Amino acid sequence: MRNLNWTAAEKKIAREAFDRAYAAESQAIRRELNSMLNQRRKTDAEVIWSMHEYLVERRREIDRKYDYRYSVLIMVFGQLCAQGWLDLDDLAGLDEDKLHGIRRILKA
Amino acid sequence: MRNLNWTAAEKKIAREAFDRAYAAESQAIRRELNSMLNQRRKTDAEVIWSMHEYLVERRREIDRKYDYRYSVLIMVFGQLCAQGWLDLDDLAGLDEDKLHGIRRILKA
Repeated sequence: MRNLNWTAAEKKIAREAFDRAYAAESQAIRRELNSMLNQRRKTDAEVIWSMHEYLVERRREIDRKYDYRYSVLIMVFGQLCAQGWLDLDDLAGLDEDKLHGIRRILKA
Repeated sequence: MRNLNWTAAEKKIAREAFDRAYAAESQAIRRELNSMLNQRRKTDAEVIWSMHEYLVERRREIDRKYDYRYSVLIMVFGQLCAQGWLDLDDLAGLDEDKLHGIRRILKA
Protein backbone atom coordinates (compact mmCIF):
# COMPACT_ATOMS: atom_id res chain seq x y z
CA MET A 1 0.00 0.00 0.00
CA ARG A 2 2.91 2.33 0.67
CA ASN A 3 4.22 2.56 -2.87
CA LEU A 4 1.03 3.27 -4.74
CA ASN A 5 1.14 5.93 -7.37
CA TRP A 6 -1.37 8.69 -7.08
CA THR A 7 -2.41 10.45 -10.27
CA ALA A 8 -3.22 14.15 -10.21
CA ALA A 9 -6.92 13.29 -10.49
CA GLU A 10 -6.68 10.87 -7.56
CA LYS A 11 -4.83 13.41 -5.47
CA LYS A 12 -7.63 15.87 -6.04
CA ILE A 13 -10.26 13.31 -5.01
CA ALA A 14 -8.20 12.33 -1.99
CA ARG A 15 -7.65 15.89 -0.84
CA GLU A 16 -11.33 16.74 -1.15
CA ALA A 17 -12.41 13.62 0.72
CA PHE A 18 -9.85 14.23 3.45
CA ASP A 19 -10.97 17.84 3.89
CA ARG A 20 -14.62 16.83 3.85
CA ALA A 21 -14.08 14.27 6.61
CA TYR A 22 -12.14 16.78 8.67
CA ALA A 23 -14.87 19.39 8.26
CA ALA A 24 -17.55 16.86 9.21
CA GLU A 25 -15.69 15.77 12.30
CA SER A 26 -15.00 19.38 13.30
CA GLN A 27 -18.69 20.13 12.98
CA ALA A 28 -19.57 17.14 15.16
CA ILE A 29 -17.11 18.32 17.81
CA ARG A 30 -18.59 21.81 17.74
CA ARG A 31 -22.07 20.34 18.24
CA GLU A 32 -20.87 18.22 21.13
CA LEU A 33 -19.27 21.30 22.72
CA ASN A 34 -22.55 23.14 22.36
CA SER A 35 -24.37 20.32 24.07
CA MET A 36 -21.79 20.18 26.89
CA LEU A 37 -21.95 23.95 27.35
CA ASN A 38 -25.70 23.88 27.79
CA GLN A 39 -25.86 21.20 30.44
CA ARG A 40 -28.06 22.63 33.17
CA ARG A 41 -27.35 20.29 36.05
CA LYS A 42 -23.63 20.87 36.26
CA THR A 43 -21.68 23.72 37.82
CA ASP A 44 -19.79 26.11 35.58
CA ALA A 45 -16.52 24.57 36.76
CA GLU A 46 -17.69 21.05 35.93
CA VAL A 47 -18.82 22.15 32.48
CA ILE A 48 -15.68 24.03 31.49
CA TRP A 49 -13.24 21.37 32.72
CA SER A 50 -15.17 18.56 31.07
CA MET A 51 -14.96 20.60 27.84
CA HIS A 52 -11.24 21.05 28.41
CA GLU A 53 -10.72 17.34 28.86
CA TYR A 54 -12.87 16.52 25.83
CA LEU A 55 -10.95 18.95 23.60
CA VAL A 56 -7.55 17.74 24.75
CA GLU A 57 -8.59 14.19 23.83
CA ARG A 58 -10.04 15.24 20.47
CA ARG A 59 -6.94 17.28 19.63
CA ARG A 60 -4.71 14.28 20.31
CA GLU A 61 -6.95 11.91 18.34
CA ILE A 62 -7.36 14.24 15.37
CA ASP A 63 -3.68 15.08 15.13
CA ARG A 64 -2.93 11.38 15.00
CA LYS A 65 -5.73 10.46 12.61
CA TYR A 66 -5.59 13.18 9.94
CA ASP A 67 -2.23 12.33 8.41
CA TYR A 68 -2.12 13.31 4.75
CA ARG A 69 0.97 11.42 3.68
CA TYR A 70 0.34 9.31 0.59
CA SER A 71 2.22 6.46 2.25
CA VAL A 72 -0.49 6.13 4.91
CA LEU A 73 -3.52 7.58 3.17
CA ILE A 74 -5.21 4.25 2.39
CA MET A 75 -5.11 3.43 6.09
CA VAL A 76 -6.43 6.88 6.97
CA PHE A 77 -9.32 6.59 4.51
CA GLY A 78 -10.13 3.10 5.77
CA GLN A 79 -10.39 4.42 9.30
CA LEU A 80 -12.42 7.49 8.28
CA CYS A 81 -14.88 5.25 6.42
CA ALA A 82 -15.06 2.84 9.35
CA GLN A 83 -15.88 5.72 11.67
CA GLY A 84 -18.49 7.15 9.32
CA TRP A 85 -16.71 10.39 8.46
CA LEU A 86 -16.46 9.30 4.83
CA ASP A 87 -18.39 7.02 2.49
CA LEU A 88 -16.73 4.89 -0.14
CA ASP A 89 -18.69 7.05 -2.59
CA ASP A 90 -16.56 10.02 -1.55
CA LEU A 91 -13.55 8.10 -2.84
CA ALA A 92 -14.99 7.09 -6.21
CA GLY A 93 -12.37 7.69 -8.86
CA LEU A 94 -9.46 6.15 -6.96
CA ASP A 95 -8.11 3.10 -8.73
CA GLU A 96 -9.21 -0.39 -7.81
CA ASP A 97 -6.06 -1.24 -5.85
CA LYS A 98 -6.61 1.69 -3.53
CA LEU A 99 -10.32 1.05 -3.09
CA HIS A 100 -9.59 -2.60 -2.37
CA GLY A 101 -7.12 -1.57 0.33
CA ILE A 102 -9.64 0.80 1.87
CA ARG A 103 -12.39 -1.80 1.86
CA ARG A 104 -10.06 -4.32 3.46
CA ILE A 105 -9.37 -1.96 6.36
CA LEU A 106 -13.03 -1.09 6.59
CA LYS A 107 -13.95 -4.76 7.05
CA ALA A 108 -11.15 -5.51 9.51
CA MET B 1 2.88 36.65 55.83
CA ARG B 2 3.71 32.97 55.84
CA ASN B 3 3.33 32.38 59.54
CA LEU B 4 0.00 34.03 60.18
CA ASN B 5 -2.42 32.18 62.36
CA TRP B 6 -5.84 31.59 60.94
CA THR B 7 -8.72 31.27 63.39
CA ALA B 8 -11.59 28.91 62.62
CA ALA B 9 -13.78 31.92 61.80
CA GLU B 10 -11.14 33.31 59.43
CA LYS B 11 -10.73 29.96 57.73
CA LYS B 12 -14.44 29.89 57.06
CA ILE B 13 -14.38 33.40 55.56
CA ALA B 14 -11.31 32.54 53.51
CA ARG B 15 -12.77 29.33 52.15
CA GLU B 16 -16.02 31.00 51.16
CA ALA B 17 -14.23 33.88 49.46
CA PHE B 18 -11.90 31.50 47.64
CA ASP B 19 -14.80 29.37 46.42
CA ARG B 20 -16.78 32.45 45.38
CA ALA B 21 -13.90 33.77 43.29
CA TYR B 22 -13.41 30.37 41.67
CA ALA B 23 -17.12 30.11 40.85
CA ALA B 24 -17.13 33.65 39.41
CA GLU B 25 -14.12 32.97 37.26
CA SER B 26 -15.57 29.63 36.08
CA GLN B 27 -18.75 31.41 35.10
CA ALA B 28 -16.81 34.01 33.14
CA ILE B 29 -14.94 31.25 31.30
CA ARG B 30 -18.20 29.50 30.47
CA ARG B 31 -19.59 32.75 29.04
CA GLU B 32 -16.48 33.28 26.97
CA LEU B 33 -16.75 29.72 25.62
CA ASN B 34 -20.34 30.39 24.68
CA SER B 35 -19.32 33.50 22.83
CA MET B 36 -16.50 31.66 21.03
CA LEU B 37 -18.80 28.79 20.11
CA ASN B 38 -21.29 31.13 18.49
CA GLN B 39 -18.87 33.00 16.25
CA ARG B 40 -20.45 32.92 12.82
CA ARG B 41 -17.56 33.97 10.62
CA LYS B 42 -15.19 31.16 11.56
CA THR B 43 -15.08 27.58 10.39
CA ASP B 44 -15.95 24.80 12.82
CA ALA B 45 -12.28 23.80 12.94
CA GLU B 46 -11.18 27.36 13.76
CA VAL B 47 -13.79 27.62 16.50
CA ILE B 48 -13.06 24.34 18.22
CA TRP B 49 -9.27 24.72 18.19
CA SER B 50 -9.44 28.27 19.43
CA MET B 51 -11.59 26.97 22.29
CA HIS B 52 -9.05 24.22 22.92
CA GLU B 53 -6.20 26.73 23.10
CA TYR B 54 -8.21 29.04 25.34
CA LEU B 55 -9.09 26.23 27.76
CA VAL B 56 -5.53 24.90 27.94
CA GLU B 57 -4.36 28.41 28.89
CA ARG B 58 -7.15 28.89 31.43
CA ARG B 59 -6.47 25.48 33.00
CA ARG B 60 -2.80 26.33 33.43
CA GLU B 61 -3.56 29.78 34.85
CA ILE B 62 -6.26 28.58 37.23
CA ASP B 63 -4.24 25.65 38.53
CA ARG B 64 -1.44 28.05 39.35
CA LYS B 65 -3.63 30.78 40.83
CA TYR B 66 -6.10 28.90 43.04
CA ASP B 67 -3.69 27.62 45.65
CA TYR B 68 -5.41 27.22 49.01
CA ARG B 69 -2.38 26.86 51.23
CA TYR B 70 -2.51 29.23 54.20
CA SER B 71 1.16 30.06 53.58
CA VAL B 72 0.30 31.72 50.25
CA LEU B 73 -3.34 32.69 50.75
CA ILE B 74 -2.72 36.40 51.35
CA MET B 75 -0.92 36.57 48.01
CA VAL B 76 -3.73 34.63 46.35
CA PHE B 77 -6.42 36.94 47.75
CA GLY B 78 -4.40 40.01 46.75
CA GLN B 79 -4.26 38.74 43.20
CA LEU B 80 -7.95 37.76 43.11
CA CYS B 81 -8.91 41.24 44.36
CA ALA B 82 -6.57 42.89 41.85
CA GLN B 83 -8.20 40.92 39.03
CA GLY B 84 -11.70 41.73 40.22
CA TRP B 85 -12.75 38.20 41.21
CA LEU B 86 -13.06 39.28 44.85
CA ASP B 87 -13.77 42.50 46.70
CA LEU B 88 -12.13 43.40 49.96
CA ASP B 89 -15.66 43.24 51.38
CA ASP B 90 -15.66 39.50 50.70
CA LEU B 91 -12.75 39.23 53.11
CA ALA B 92 -14.24 41.29 55.95
CA GLY B 93 -13.62 39.45 59.22
CA LEU B 94 -9.98 38.63 58.54
CA ASP B 95 -7.67 40.34 61.03
CA GLU B 96 -5.97 43.62 60.24
CA ASP B 97 -2.57 42.07 59.51
CA LYS B 98 -4.04 39.91 56.80
CA LEU B 99 -6.14 42.68 55.27
CA HIS B 100 -3.11 44.94 55.30
CA GLY B 101 -1.12 42.31 53.43
CA ILE B 102 -3.89 41.88 50.86
CA ARG B 103 -4.22 45.64 50.31
CA ARG B 104 -0.48 45.94 49.88
CA ILE B 105 -0.51 43.36 47.07
CA LEU B 106 -3.58 44.96 45.58
CA LYS B 107 -1.79 48.30 45.32
CA ALA B 108 1.46 46.87 44.03
